[in-house]
Amino acid sequence: MNSLTPAWVIQRKRDGHPLSSDELHYFIRGLLNGDVADYQATAFLMAVFFRGMNPEETVGLTEIMLNSGERYNLSHIPGPKVDKHSTGGVGDKTSLILAPLAAACGLKVPMMSGRGLGHTGGTLDKLESIPGFSTSMDRAGFESVLSNVGCAMIGQTDRVAPADKKLYALRDVTGTVECIPLIVASILSKKISEGTEGLVFDVKVGSGAFMKTKDQAKRLAKMLIQVSKKLGVPARALLTDMSQPLGYAVGNAVEVRECIAIMRNEKCADSSMDLKELTIQLCAHMLDLGRVTKNLVEGRKLARAKLADGSAWKFFEKLVEAQGGSLDAIRHPEKLPQAPLKYVFKAGKRGYVKTMDTEALGRLLVEMGGGRKKVTDSVDPGVGMIFHRKLGVKLQSGDAIATVFAPSGFDLAHLESKLTDAIEISGQRKPVPKLVLEEF
Amino acid sequence: MNSLTPAWVIQRKRDGHPLSSDELHYFIRGLLNGDVADYQATAFLMAVFFRGMNPEETVGLTEIMLNSGERYNLSHIPGPKVDKHSTGGVGDKTSLILAPLAAACGLKVPMMSGRGLGHTGGTLDKLESIPGFSTSMDRAGFESVLSNVGCAMIGQTDRVAPADKKLYALRDVTGTVECIPLIVASILSKKISEGTEGLVFDVKVGSGAFMKTKDQAKRLAKMLIQVSKKLGVPARALLTDMSQPLGYAVGNAVEVRECIAIMRNEKCADSSMDLKELTIQLCAHMLDLGRVTKNLVEGRKLARAKLADGSAWKFFEKLVEAQGGSLDAIRHPEKLPQAPLKYVFKAGKRGYVKTMDTEALGRLLVEMGGGRKKVTDSVDPGVGMIFHRKLGVKLQSGDAIATVFAPSGFDLAHLESKLTDAIEISGQRKPVPKLVLEEF
Repeated sequence: MNSLTPAWVIQRKRDGHPLSSDELHYFIRGLLNGDVADYQATAFLMAVFFRGMNPEETVGLTEIMLNSGERYNLSHIPGPKVDKHSTGGVGDKTSLILAPLAAACGLKVPMMSGRGLGHTGGTLDKLESIPGFSTSMDRAGFESVLSNVGCAMIGQTDRVAPADKKLYALRDVTGTVECIPLIVASILSKKISEGTEGLVFDVKVGSGAFMKTKDQAKRLAKMLIQVSKKLGVPARALLTDMSQPLGYAVGNAVEVRECIAIMRNEKCADSSMDLKELTIQLCAHMLDLGRVTKNLVEGRKLARAKLADGSAWKFFEKLVEAQGGSLDAIRHPEKLPQAPLKYVFKAGKRGYVKTMDTEALGRLLVEMGGGRKKVTDSVDPGVGMIFHRKLGVKLQSGDAIATVFAPSGFDLAHLESKLTDAIEISGQRKPVPKLVLEEF
Repeated sequence: MNSLTPAWVIQRKRDGHPLSSDELHYFIRGLLNGDVADYQATAFLMAVFFRGMNPEETVGLTEIMLNSGERYNLSHIPGPKVDKHSTGGVGDKTSLILAPLAAACGLKVPMMSGRGLGHTGGTLDKLESIPGFSTSMDRAGFESVLSNVGCAMIGQTDRVAPADKKLYALRDVTGTVECIPLIVASILSKKISEGTEGLVFDVKVGSGAFMKTKDQAKRLAKMLIQVSKKLGVPARALLTDMSQPLGYAVGNAVEVRECIAIMRNEKCADSSMDLKELTIQLCAHMLDLGRVTKNLVEGRKLARAKLADGSAWKFFEKLVEAQGGSLDAIRHPEKLPQAPLKYVFKAGKRGYVKTMDTEALGRLLVEMGGGRKKVTDSVDPGVGMIFHRKLGVKLQSGDAIATVFAPSGFDLAHLESKLTDAIEISGQRKPVPKLVLEEF
């Protein structure tokens, strides 16, 4: 056998040979210590894009990336630790309700999240629209909030999975993001670092998701579960619909407001029902995985009860307080930021909402400053959209479809044209996709 | 359409879309001016490895690489200019005879060559084993030698095809060398820069060539011709056998000695016949392409005559003199360098030479210091091997197969074991591949 060189490892992958754990280790550690150049890593990533990785390789890669950084051990904190990860969507704000709800049901939820990038939002950005809320905490602080509140929501520190940071930055600019083994290793190397004992994956599929087809999403879901289990973390996955925004709100502060309304049991808007139901379903899986309840039916029952009796809201208040956020702002959500220019988008004809180009809606939010094109962009928390009508809903000409909060000076004609392009109205009602497409 | 970004171009190629000339231009120029990072170029190269390029893209890429540097215009020098390019092999020394021979027949041969790398040798290294011979000349010097002698043999200057230099260096360390459109663009961007009006390609196939199968070699040959023609340079290609070393000598000075023997019409060794015949055949194609002769038959006749009457040798002497080489050394080739340790490798049993692992023989030369592992390695011109017997030849036990000139202190047991592994002797005679497999 040849002695290992970066080019040799690249060629092995290029030619379709599975890589051994030693070869992967050599390559990934080499990337961190400088023996492997960035320009070799990107050729390797593109070869992986084309050749894929078998489950053993994906496990190996994930493990190496995981062990490239700090791993939390939370075994001294009593109670089952279970977390959820979503592959990202538009209006996907389940974490904000789910973490306090699952904690209220008896789980510990050690949640490390990311920021929004491109058309999808990020939990950290949403939380930070609450004045004072801090998502950066050291290990002791994180463990203390988790232990006292039952959940903690922070960003990844620099010490978690540095190999993933390096690889992700390279993938982002070399067309190698959409690759299942690389996505799996990236997600799991971060999620398993946080010390969780179980993971529920919410794999989004549809116009607002990274996975545009059910087939792709299914493959990702199965690989996430398989690799997670191999690394000692039991896992479940739900394939859920992202052919329209989840809930009624898209934007940071406006999404927090929607979550608060659900947690406070205010009258639930029709276009918010999907968010509420998905959160309960995800919570049930977390409870089942953490053996808090005997089965999913019991899990759903308990989740529903803890939401209805105000427990989730209480836990959310405790969380916000523990992480420095303003209780006044969440108790009076009208005080949360709101962009000054209000625009109501109305139906130009009667009919039904046939399709929503959810990714385009996400990009429109970015364009208004409510999201990021680049990691270094800052985000305007007050920018947002509220969807009064979603897929399959009957409209009369002139009915309000969405209310937009745009930054002052934003071109409203452009806004209207983008919305008109993104939301298709048709004379015939098209069946609306199921919210939960499959559960594994 | 999105505005061009490096990642976008990479993704287009990754997803199998042909790139426009503008997109290629943006990417390749960007690589030279820093807008495209090396780590983006290598991801692109790997995507090209998997997706290939259609003829239009390959033409576009070649043209951009060609125009990234200086292009010689030789139209002021009278006579048809035709050059030959070999894809590289072991013992492939045709250029040394071919350039003066074709010049003796009435062509102008503006030959820019490369150095040896890996298992294949390079024309420049061979020429430089002649004391004083200089292969680096400025444009005026090159044109003057070409004009006065009829041929000139130099290395590529830094000003020729800088995009190719950059890309080649990246390909070499990222497993993206073996890719037909990239090979074609690399060869042609350099060869067309030299101002030739016609090109004959010697595409090697077999154990000592980069293209191990006839199919691959054929695809390369056809693409070289197609792209060359599109860029205004008529071209031919010969598919020739490289399942054994060409001629009897492998090594720098020893190969020059073999060429001198042929040019001086010394009694031609059996194992040198293939070299002589291939050189005549290549010369005939060059003459036909340059319309010096009416057809290939006439071309072969003229080439044979100019070799037999000593004209090629006269032109070689003129060339060596014009480029500063020692006439004394070529007239007394025993004065050329020779490594001190002489070893004769003998047949261990009777039978026939069945296979020669020609690449292994080339690597053995490198190991002895007669070639390069890295571009920056220096080469010992006196190291070499002479093959007294080649494929299909009958052997008695104890017959000399090869004489090796190794550096002092070289491990002879290791040498013997390498040669034993590389040269297979069998009781049954296997048919020997034809020298010229196909002509296009």
